[in-house]
Amino acid sequence: MSTLTIPDPLPTPEEDSQKLNKAFKGWGTDEKSIIEILGHRTAAQRREIRDAYARLFNQTLVDSLRSELSGDFGRAVVLWALDPAERDAILAHEVLKKKGYRHMCVIVEIACASPPDHLISVRQAYSSLFNSSLEEDIIDYSTGHHSLTQLLVRLVSSYRYDGMYLNEDLVDSDADDLYNAIKMGQQEPPIGLINILSTRSIHHLKASFHRYQQKANGKSIYEDIEGNKNYDHELKSIMKCVVCCIASPEKHFVEVVRNSIVGLGTDEDSLTRAIVTRAEIDLKNIKEEYKIRYKTTVNADVIGDTSGDYKNFLLTLVGSAEP
Amino acid sequence: MSTLTIPDPLPTPEEDSQKLNKAFKGWGTDEKSIIEILGHRTAAQRREIRDAYARLFNQTLVDSLRSELSGDFGRAVVLWALDPAERDAILAHEVLKKKGYRHMCVIVEIACASPPDHLISVRQAYSSLFNSSLEEDIIDYSTGHHSLTQLLVRLVSSYRYDGMYLNEDLVDSDADDLYNAIKMGQQEPPIGLINILSTRSIHHLKASFHRYQQKANGKSIYEDIEGNKNYDHELKSIMKCVVCCIASPEKHFVEVVRNSIVGLGTDEDSLTRAIVTRAEIDLKNIKEEYKIRYKTTVNADVIGDTSGDYKNFLLTLVGSAEP
Repeated sequence: MSTLTIPDPLPTPEEDSQKLNKAFKGWGTDEKSIIEILGHRTAAQRREIRDAYARLFNQTLVDSLRSELSGDFGRAVVLWALDPAERDAILAHEVLKKKGYRHMCVIVEIACASPPDHLISVRQAYSSLFNSSLEEDIIDYSTGHHSLTQLLVRLVSSYRYDGMYLNEDLVDSDADDLYNAIKMGQQEPPIGLINILSTRSIHHLKASFHRYQQKANGKSIYEDIEGNKNYDHELKSIMKCVVCCIASPEKHFVEVVRNSIVGLGTDEDSLTRAIVTRAEIDLKNIKEEYKIRYKTTVNADVIGDTSGDYKNFLLTLVGSAEP
Repeated sequence: MSTLTIPDPLPTPEEDSQKLNKAFKGWGTDEKSIIEILGHRTAAQRREIRDAYARLFNQTLVDSLRSELSGDFGRAVVLWALDPAERDAILAHEVLKKKGYRHMCVIVEIACASPPDHLISVRQAYSSLFNSSLEEDIIDYSTGHHSLTQLLVRLVSSYRYDGMYLNEDLVDSDADDLYNAIKMGQQEPPIGLINILSTRSIHHLKASFHRYQQKANGKSIYEDIEGNKNYDHELKSIMKCVVCCIASPEKHFVEVVRNSIVGLGTDEDSLTRAIVTRAEIDLKNIKEEYKIRYKTTVNADVIGDTSGDYKNFLLTLVGSAEP
């Protein structure tokens, strides 16, 4: 569920655009107004504002934001102002410029913690923004970890059935296959395991993971991946990310937020990504889960670790401290 | 280019629907009117007729056609009346009920001889019609030919970049990789070859195939696959289909039409598929290519091998004998 609050009555997209343009003008930028407007509009409303702004000022809103704002605040607002599919395409492209598979979890989030039609829109946006397909860029990124590359390519290429129909026999045999594949002690995940994780519906996979746990005397597939001594660190971390994004995206994002806060310094990119991408999806559930798990609130941790406009913007998206 | 001819002035979708409904009523079905109307309407116009028909008669046009028509004629008209993405989803589903990989070329056509956005629409239609993803059904179909299954899954999962940007270095290195992979003498196509064929843009692949031929002293990739003694018959036939659908779909469909005609009996399903699915895409080019290659026309071969309403309907879609 979304954490956004929308004003009533709602200004027209033209009024919002005028106010935003005014906020960009003059001696300093009026960050407060930008937060006040964009932080309280849904994706559909932001699209209407983008359209109106381009009509009125002959420039895109995102370009204006990019030139007026900077730092973590600027990055967060720009990501928020973008069309969600374009935003995810840009996040995926950024990851493919970084070194190290550990960043690839961002791509897993897009592939496994989003509805199938959103993933398709991301691939379409990626292709028109970057003149290549997301999957070929993943392959070209490959630095030798072939099975990991294949897993990622197959996950981003999926268009899973999105309904509730379930074939119980298939759930059962997939649970067996997953169990055998993970227990088999191979260094690489066999193709059968990749096939299952990348083509079955989320509803089906959740049922298979549940069935897995029954077969494994209470041990979850997540724990078995964690305990698998044959998988290297990178494979293990991506496989855990896959399973978590499929089984329970909110639990995955609880970890993303928490890990961005704890330790030395704040990982602003991860914190921004989690809050911006999930605000309209399940941030309410993430906040509840966070409170149960860490006995503190997302709000309190954001306040403790960030400051200024960046803090104010994140808190606007996060909404009230009491769920 | 399309072979369709559209009347001017064009009747409204409501008028067409009324006439179609009248054609279904009374003692016999008026096949001539059905051909006269539907055979002269574009996909967009047929969609409007479907919408109007459903509004006016509280029944879908496709259901009416299915209950009124039968045989090869009925099958052809129903396929023609369907939304093109839904039609291809149904064709793919039919193939996955048949025995033998030789039928899989239908799936390759959908994956490699259609624009990326059409392939996505087919997958969406497949998922809503059949409660599963196209790719999982291909995997579940697998009867042991794993590399062929992987190739097919990867091809249907592709969302290729559809523009004209070309990276010449990549074209060159892909040509090398294709050459080495096919010349290497393995029984299975290596994953690198599958990666290239399933993720690169059609424009890029055409350039790579051209470069391949230069490297191979004039031998085409098609000929090298044909001459590869390590590939079994099924793999060879599907790989040739892939390369042909990418390099030159019209040449592929020239063969589909010709093979459906020559020999004992007519393969009506293939003939129907080629004409119905390509009429609005490249049937004009297919006809020209056919004439050059076989010194006869598609029209003459259709007249020679089919009869009655089926013949009349196909000829309506094929258009004039002189291109």
